[in-house]
Amino acid sequence: MRQQRLLNPTLRDIPGDAEAASHRLMLRAGLIRQLSSGIYSYLPLGLKALHNIQQIVREEMDAAGAQEMLMPALHPSELWKASGRWDVYGPELMRLEDRNGREFALGATHEEVITTIVKDEIHSYKKLPVTLYQIQTKYRDERRPRFGLLRGREFLMKDAYSFDRTESGLDASYQSMYNAYVNIFTRCGLEFRAVEADSGAIGGTDTHEFMALADVGEDTIVHCTSCQYAANIEKAIGTVPEHRISMRVDTILSASQPVKVHTPQVTSIKQLSQFLQIDANQIIKSVALQADGMPVIVLLRGDYELNEVKLKQALGADEVSMLSEVDIEKLGSIAGFIGPIGLQNVRFIADTSIKGLKDAIVGANEPDFHLIQVEVERDLGAISFHDVRNVAQGDLCSNCGHELSFAKGIEVGHVFKLGTKYSRSLGASISDENGVFEPIIMGCYGIGVSRVLAAIIEQNYDERGIVWPESITPFSIHLLTIHVQDEVQMKLSEEIYTTLIRAGYSVLWDDRDDRPGVKFNDSDLLGFPLRITVGKKASERIVECKERRDGSQYERSVEHILTHCHSLFQTGGRSSHE
Amino acid sequence: MRQQRLLNPTLRDIPGDAEAASHRLMLRAGLIRQLSSGIYSYLPLGLKALHNIQQIVREEMDAAGAQEMLMPALHPSELWKASGRWDVYGPELMRLEDRNGREFALGATHEEVITTIVKDEIHSYKKLPVTLYQIQTKYRDERRPRFGLLRGREFLMKDAYSFDRTESGLDASYQSMYNAYVNIFTRCGLEFRAVEADSGAIGGTDTHEFMALADVGEDTIVHCTSCQYAANIEKAIGTVPEHRISMRVDTILSASQPVKVHTPQVTSIKQLSQFLQIDANQIIKSVALQADGMPVIVLLRGDYELNEVKLKQALGADEVSMLSEVDIEKLGSIAGFIGPIGLQNVRFIADTSIKGLKDAIVGANEPDFHLIQVEVERDLGAISFHDVRNVAQGDLCSNCGHELSFAKGIEVGHVFKLGTKYSRSLGASISDENGVFEPIIMGCYGIGVSRVLAAIIEQNYDERGIVWPESITPFSIHLLTIHVQDEVQMKLSEEIYTTLIRAGYSVLWDDRDDRPGVKFNDSDLLGFPLRITVGKKASERIVECKERRDGSQYERSVEHILTHCHSLFQTGGRSSHE
Repeated sequence: MRQQRLLNPTLRDIPGDAEAASHRLMLRAGLIRQLSSGIYSYLPLGLKALHNIQQIVREEMDAAGAQEMLMPALHPSELWKASGRWDVYGPELMRLEDRNGREFALGATHEEVITTIVKDEIHSYKKLPVTLYQIQTKYRDERRPRFGLLRGREFLMKDAYSFDRTESGLDASYQSMYNAYVNIFTRCGLEFRAVEADSGAIGGTDTHEFMALADVGEDTIVHCTSCQYAANIEKAIGTVPEHRISMRVDTILSASQPVKVHTPQVTSIKQLSQFLQIDANQIIKSVALQADGMPVIVLLRGDYELNEVKLKQALGADEVSMLSEVDIEKLGSIAGFIGPIGLQNVRFIADTSIKGLKDAIVGANEPDFHLIQVEVERDLGAISFHDVRNVAQGDLCSNCGHELSFAKGIEVGHVFKLGTKYSRSLGASISDENGVFEPIIMGCYGIGVSRVLAAIIEQNYDERGIVWPESITPFSIHLLTIHVQDEVQMKLSEEIYTTLIRAGYSVLWDDRDDRPGVKFNDSDLLGFPLRITVGKKASERIVECKERRDGSQYERSVEHILTHCHSLFQTGGRSSHE
Repeated sequence: MRQQRLLNPTLRDIPGDAEAASHRLMLRAGLIRQLSSGIYSYLPLGLKALHNIQQIVREEMDAAGAQEMLMPALHPSELWKASGRWDVYGPELMRLEDRNGREFALGATHEEVITTIVKDEIHSYKKLPVTLYQIQTKYRDERRPRFGLLRGREFLMKDAYSFDRTESGLDASYQSMYNAYVNIFTRCGLEFRAVEADSGAIGGTDTHEFMALADVGEDTIVHCTSCQYAANIEKAIGTVPEHRISMRVDTILSASQPVKVHTPQVTSIKQLSQFLQIDANQIIKSVALQADGMPVIVLLRGDYELNEVKLKQALGADEVSMLSEVDIEKLGSIAGFIGPIGLQNVRFIADTSIKGLKDAIVGANEPDFHLIQVEVERDLGAISFHDVRNVAQGDLCSNCGHELSFAKGIEVGHVFKLGTKYSRSLGASISDENGVFEPIIMGCYGIGVSRVLAAIIEQNYDERGIVWPESITPFSIHLLTIHVQDEVQMKLSEEIYTTLIRAGYSVLWDDRDDRPGVKFNDSDLLGFPLRITVGKKASERIVECKERRDGSQYERSVEHILTHCHSLFQTGGRSSHE
């Protein structure tokens, strides 16, 4: 394609409100433009990259035996009411009425629709297993759309749904999608981790998130520095390292019961550890919460944070919120001095981090007093222990004992064992060999296709612009003519352009009548793998090559340019585009 | 692909509520399923055909130099208010509010969005001309969705928009799209006509509709039996054939002025021609209307029908409706006996079909009386003549004088010169060499991609099912194994399948454990060009071939099957799919 007329409005200035690197670069390189908050148009170069991702997704899904179909975005409300999600999905689900007053949702996801189709069309076990997928536009009215394509309101998704007779069938379908996702993200050139994740409110069992590592990511990933263990912080478990288990040596001789000490206006962990000159790991935090309307106090070590997701699972609760000061007083305690000893009529739950603590400090449930020399096993009685804390820096892998590490990630994919939630509520069942009907066992599998595009850029740029991976780049080669008025340069450029196009390479030819500096800057910003510059040595049939990733520059004679490209592009660099 | 697990639910029975052949066949062959009125899911085979159409559209648009991009479906209402269409588009435009109460339209078309993008990004004449297109889902809340994909509410469209400096530039862009459309529809295997159409309310100048000929079509096309002339009935012009010009020979000697005759209760053209024993072509109909609130009477020959579109243009009116009986009486006439003579205070407009009529009959503007022996030029004075009638059977081509013919068509494409309507209202202008800003001159070009799919089937079926054109068929070859329990048959089938797939053919292998009759019926219903049946001669390595289009059947040895396929499929029958 020739650049003169290409709709590729590059920007010199960094757009002020774009926080993420990918967002800034996609705007600057003219890949996307915002139409409304979280709603973007793809300009030609952005769409080419998006198509390349789609193609990889399609190839790997097909190779995994999944069948592509396409479902509508307009969903009759009845389906969402049948699944129970019409009411619980909240304002994220966009809704409208048609001319006859019938309610519709704009599809945020397609469990309801696909389950209805399968319910209507598949009745025998002989037609299972089947995995169906689509690449389709989704709508979610995010409260805070941001980071460009990373969190949008209208976005492209690949969603797949598997249908099995048995749990072991689901396991196989799940694994097949998991493997396809590994292939897809690898081919997209992403550095990623498949992490164990929380199955949360959707109510399934196994689930993995595919996280593209990037500082801008909104998720925290915990992974082992030695073995393969990786999990979302919400789900991650770790063991408390030995050296951090509380061992206070400068203490007075242990009392046979807790001792009350005066701690005036000392209400936080930090204040308390300063006041008593102890480490936070010796303090037992009491976090007073309301879980599905009932008060509950969570005990965990002062140096750990509560993990709400784990807590909900431990309690079997849907909603958890902080308990008000008034409600704390109703329990017979006071904010800042809550403790597990002496309080009745409230459920306690202890994090495993306090197990075995001997010389610990807790609130005394009266203003300005704490209890010291608390022994968990002796003083707290038959309390139940659960892992309800976030893994912390320094914790060890529960698998192999090596240290855990932390990273930020962008969730680009998600595989999920749904079970029978939707097949039951929407009535999708199949008959077995004996004619007995059983609900179909489902899995669902999503890839944020447009988010993948942003994540790729988030991992592939430098101070001059984007550095495209070969598999995704809108064009493999940027052909640049220094002076378009120069007939020799133009003629040679045309010759090279034709040669490369005929050989199947995708080439953007910068034939604009512009200053060389502008063209070089744009070229770096656009970031195609190879730049070929036709300049003053055109008469000698010599051009300059520059590889975008490592910046290497060298000359080549035109006669060798095709051979050079063949050696450079592993995949051949050739696409069906252009 | 193997058919056993393919989601391809074929139906034996004809769905009762599907009126159009394409709708029935797409349901029966398991290509689509309805989710809600006018809203469909594409099952795997339907989507494959749709992809094939998209691919052709994409190739031809790219070849014509158009650039692909992708715009959102959610349009902020401000844009539609700026163009003035928020209010005039009516209930067909689906609307919703986001969580913050901001209004959005679901894109029915993208003039507003693309013009806004171009306004923001293109400022210099050097970047023009440019044509941008997308293949994207559109939403129109049709009052009467019907005929399956032919008139849906959520459908796939290719919409393109050209941007030029000059009218002659627009002419060239328009012609380029026109040519691309001819290529696209030809490659899709459609029988179609490009017809002149009415530019209507969009307010442009030239416009052509691409009509796929089909009896189910909702549009009437008029085309010359000799030359290339073709037009939508709304726009078509014809000349009145000589032999139909009124020549009454059995009349009394002409009076010098009209003669009043008693015609009791004779109010229709049919009654009048029977009562007076004359042809309808001797009667001048007076059609009383209200045009933008003002009364107007249209005179046209009794054997012609009024063309409202032409009338609106002739009058420069936006709205035309019938005049009520009360309003007719206010004019001093009476319904059933209206005529042009003696009426004041009303505008008359005459169709050219009454020009030169000598011995004509008109209403007398009093109950039960008509005037006969009316001479148009003598009695009607300085009336203005316009072509405001529908072309009728037997009319002649205004270009070449040969007879015009009529056909029904499905509008599959539309090319349209928009001019500056949107660039003015949305402020898209470019500076010329002297820095003077002028509004950009636009064209818009649409193809109903999903409608094309239905139109192809509408033209390609028989009593047994679909008969796919080679370019669009979901699979080129249907490989059918009679007895899947038979090891020899299965082994040979697998060999053939592998051979054909490796050679690049798209093959669906019917490996279902089902009765041969079911499989043959499904195969005819699905309608791929070539069926290869592996049956009882498998041990001799002989298979049966059947060509779907002409029904020819013959045997081939497996050794020759690939050569045979190469000879059969002009395009090679090979696709990148499968």
